[in-house]
Amino acid sequence: MGVREILAEWGVKEYRRIDKRALAEITLGASILATGGGGDPEIGLLWAYNVVEQGKEILLVDPDDMPDEALATIAGCLGAALVLTEKPPNGQELFWCYEALGRYMGKPVQAVVPPEAGGVNTPVPMAVAGAVGVPVIDADGMGRAFPELQMTSFYIHGVSPSPTVAADEKGHITIADTTDALMAERIIRNAAMAYGGISWIAGYPMTGKQLKETAILRSISLAWELGRRVMEARRRHRDPIQEVISLTKGYRAFQGKIVDINREFGAEKTKGFSMGRITLEGIDDFKGHTAAIDFQNEWLTLHVDGEVRCMPPDLICILDPATGEPIRTDVVKYGYRGVVVLIPAHERMRTKKGIETFGPRYFGYDYDYVPVERLMGD
Amino acid sequence: MGVREILAEWGVKEYRRIDKRALAEITLGASILATGGGGDPEIGLLWAYNVVEQGKEILLVDPDDMPDEALATIAGCLGAALVLTEKPPNGQELFWCYEALGRYMGKPVQAVVPPEAGGVNTPVPMAVAGAVGVPVIDADGMGRAFPELQMTSFYIHGVSPSPTVAADEKGHITIADTTDALMAERIIRNAAMAYGGISWIAGYPMTGKQLKETAILRSISLAWELGRRVMEARRRHRDPIQEVISLTKGYRAFQGKIVDINREFGAEKTKGFSMGRITLEGIDDFKGHTAAIDFQNEWLTLHVDGEVRCMPPDLICILDPATGEPIRTDVVKYGYRGVVVLIPAHERMRTKKGIETFGPRYFGYDYDYVPVERLMGD
Repeated sequence: MGVREILAEWGVKEYRRIDKRALAEITLGASILATGGGGDPEIGLLWAYNVVEQGKEILLVDPDDMPDEALATIAGCLGAALVLTEKPPNGQELFWCYEALGRYMGKPVQAVVPPEAGGVNTPVPMAVAGAVGVPVIDADGMGRAFPELQMTSFYIHGVSPSPTVAADEKGHITIADTTDALMAERIIRNAAMAYGGISWIAGYPMTGKQLKETAILRSISLAWELGRRVMEARRRHRDPIQEVISLTKGYRAFQGKIVDINREFGAEKTKGFSMGRITLEGIDDFKGHTAAIDFQNEWLTLHVDGEVRCMPPDLICILDPATGEPIRTDVVKYGYRGVVVLIPAHERMRTKKGIETFGPRYFGYDYDYVPVERLMGD
Repeated sequence: MGVREILAEWGVKEYRRIDKRALAEITLGASILATGGGGDPEIGLLWAYNVVEQGKEILLVDPDDMPDEALATIAGCLGAALVLTEKPPNGQELFWCYEALGRYMGKPVQAVVPPEAGGVNTPVPMAVAGAVGVPVIDADGMGRAFPELQMTSFYIHGVSPSPTVAADEKGHITIADTTDALMAERIIRNAAMAYGGISWIAGYPMTGKQLKETAILRSISLAWELGRRVMEARRRHRDPIQEVISLTKGYRAFQGKIVDINREFGAEKTKGFSMGRITLEGIDDFKGHTAAIDFQNEWLTLHVDGEVRCMPPDLICILDPATGEPIRTDVVKYGYRGVVVLIPAHERMRTKKGIETFGPRYFGYDYDYVPVERLMGD
């Protein structure tokens, strides 16, 4: 069965066909929302372009048009984004995941939903959907990027990541099947480490009903609009940062030059994450001020002059002032200049269980979550 | 389908029904052959007794009576034997493994073969076969015990361990499916560590033809005869050690008192194995001599007065002189007295690939394998 047959069966009349331009816009928007993580968009885009060039259709469907009983899963990669750049995928990994998952579950997957907003984990699941012949649902599991398997709106609203399949470019397969999401994360993280730092995964099987109740809905549309506006601003020599802020109700929290990068090393310590802290010296309106941003694959917390200004799950985006291009944790370098934009997390990410799962205390900070709106004095 | 139906379908007329006495004898023999590893036979026996008491039949079938195309797998545990004693199984782990394996492979398992000779991994697969309703094949994958998944006659003669399923008492499931046996070992070992040190596994799916070509054949019969003779010697106040030596063509290589135990600690270093070295001071015929035995779950090498006398895969068994009871690496204590019996490994374990996979160099020794017969001057 192909994607058109699935949409006919579902009775879907409206959908959007994703072409290369749309992929570029969505991927730019998603990498801005990825808060410094989510991997190299070049890799995600190349993969997705390749699928489109093969004549496969990538069709984006509104969550409301997915039947309650249809089965969707996430697809994407888990591990250190830096390793991904050094160890490109062969393109078969996610097919192997789907083959193993379908075999294990005994039923075919009918739709793909991106796990997160990211330069890799947004376009790649879209490409996989196109290649496999199923629709992409206009939603994701975070509305941003986060490092661990259980850090999703799916999980905090009751969907288990299991079974999740992890594959690498050599065809090694690991399946985790457990009601304990932290154990699933541990099994899949161990697999990624054994594979050399990165794994490609498919999992979080969920019905259309579950997806509608738990996902960050229409976030691909949001990323698309964001990417479109930033590209438009570049062409018209307008301020791209202002476009980001106005669309996302974000805050321009800092502007500065990166004067220090303190990276943690050693797999035993970092478990394959990109971890550390950067320091920015303020420029322009922020001259005389200092900002410190901690990261674990993604930017986690912002402190300005020692005062906390943003904590997870709220979004910290460091953007190039001229182009709006995001600066990523895995490639950030001394001397880069950036504007720090803060964006409130989606309300579905801010539940009690959400704060337990990816709030500041989970990441080892000794303070309770305060929404960015309050920290920024709204 | 039950075990009787399978045997009828196979046209098997001769088989042996394993009762509690047979289980006790087989388990004693298997724990002697386990070379200090293989775990606490009390745990294996209790599990197997329980199955027999429920009225389930454990039927032992000669490998020649298994059809070439029938499917067998191993079942057992992998991890640190000491943890097993502290963290007893709930009895469901291997059923969950079989359920997951059958689901993943899309076909039912028709026979069980023990992975190794051991106090746990011989009676437990027999019990599981009884509980699941399939026959046990009179064979195993080592003719002894070894610590790692790939250290089997199956693997060195071309059978892959994949897919292998690992479960724990909480129902966490991990599946490894890869043509790379060392990667499978790594995935399953990581799962065992994540589970708290021990995992229950089913895997190494193989046809009857593969089993006949790769297994250590009729090793359950050997363990049974060994256990029977040692028990008989105890009753008749004969020397049980002599029974072991005459049946296995073994060597009485040392007799002494354990005067030092040097254990390695820390999961990072030991990866969950029981590792270390014991020193024995000679008594009786060996007075004035000193023996050192290294272990990694199993006794690995014997040095007497600094000269190597036995290396893997040949067997080192330390037995209580009065009862013939084996002394295990996980519970060995200062002051124990033991006779060190060396037994040549099965010829199927001594191939070039075998020596690469579990010979002295694999375990970090800087010397080539020399068969125990030569080291003992035959």
